[in-house]
Amino acid sequence: MARSPAAPSIAAAVRLDLLEEPNAIAAIVGRLAERGGRVRTIATVRSLDSDPPQAEIEIEVDGLTEDELVDALDGLPDIQAIRRTRALGSIFGKRVIVIGGGAQVAQVALGAVSEADRHNLRGERISVDTIPLVGEASIAAAVRAVADLPRARLLVLAGSIMGGDISVAADELRAVGVSIIALNMVGSITDHVDLVVSDPVQAGTMAVMAIADTATFDLVRQRGRKY
Amino acid sequence: MARSPAAPSIAAAVRLDLLEEPNAIAAIVGRLAERGGRVRTIATVRSLDSDPPQAEIEIEVDGLTEDELVDALDGLPDIQAIRRTRALGSIFGKRVIVIGGGAQVAQVALGAVSEADRHNLRGERISVDTIPLVGEASIAAAVRAVADLPRARLLVLAGSIMGGDISVAADELRAVGVSIIALNMVGSITDHVDLVVSDPVQAGTMAVMAIADTATFDLVRQRGRKY
Repeated sequence: MARSPAAPSIAAAVRLDLLEEPNAIAAIVGRLAERGGRVRTIATVRSLDSDPPQAEIEIEVDGLTEDELVDALDGLPDIQAIRRTRALGSIFGKRVIVIGGGAQVAQVALGAVSEADRHNLRGERISVDTIPLVGEASIAAAVRAVADLPRARLLVLAGSIMGGDISVAADELRAVGVSIIALNMVGSITDHVDLVVSDPVQAGTMAVMAIADTATFDLVRQRGRKY
Repeated sequence: MARSPAAPSIAAAVRLDLLEEPNAIAAIVGRLAERGGRVRTIATVRSLDSDPPQAEIEIEVDGLTEDELVDALDGLPDIQAIRRTRALGSIFGKRVIVIGGGAQVAQVALGAVSEADRHNLRGERISVDTIPLVGEASIAAAVRAVADLPRARLLVLAGSIMGGDISVAADELRAVGVSIIALNMVGSITDHVDLVVSDPVQAGTMAVMAIADTATFDLVRQRGRKY
């Protein structure tokens, strides 16, 4: 069954100060469902040093306007404050994720940020999100976790040697519809990705081109190639 | 009231294939509350091209073990598949966010990724997440939205001229406990941040040092200085 990125969010969004009561979230979700809203995101963003304990919660909902969302939440007993905000997808957009060794991650980021700058100037919203990691277990776990990252559209594996469980994780990630570009490197990983690129700056550039609606680069037509 | 980062997540996590029924999320949250779980995150990560429509949802819950979480969800009618996964905080950790012009964002990222590499080698988990943007309105909206990003700990503003509503947004962001480092630049922004650093690579390095438990850099003692 094909899996595709969640549609660009036009969700209404609020951030709440919420008492940490066991049923606080359930009450909110129940109320929103009654009003015809569909919860897309609930995220605990920080804790408040208050007595009784509270947390700040960001909520994104489809099917309600911002006014309807605020109105639906009005009067729920555990909500201490409501701030209107904007759905994260409308601000930070699609995400290229870069994982690997620090030296190479930085160079891929250089290419990807420069290319994203050019597309964002023309109305795109593309983020470049990175984490430098070492070791097969850590990298494999991070590759698997990209499947859980909202708005992650493409992964760049930036390193000098990767294989083993990282290659297994790469197959799993591609199976849920996230494409992968790898640097040319030692190990089996280059047989388990969509595209292999030797130059890290170009790898970052191509990663952004592959997900930009403002570019004409089609990763499907490049699948299996090495540059 | 002081606001502090949510504690490092030891939440149990699963990813579900879920029918897009109006009450599907409410049923899950209600069941988890019954079992003593506290929902920290619900995120719609992608859509499935299925009939009837389904979505992939990542859920993180405090107060239940992974086995208890899976057991609690077992038998709920709208759940089509359950995969065990790991809370995103345990994989991608604390986040430095870099916003601004492409040329400077890339150089800040270079410093931050290189420094994060050194700390992650010693057991930290620090991500460096970036978006190149132009224009007062776009940048101010992104600064405000950093308050909604889970695990965002510090923002670096990387540009050549920022002020106006960006400075207002910077004050709002610092009020919720997210520190800001800015490059030395034209405009009022340098009066509305915690620290001003002229060299972008050093700005990125200091940003990571400021949030790393493995570093001895204390941003509070540097507040208001320019380097």
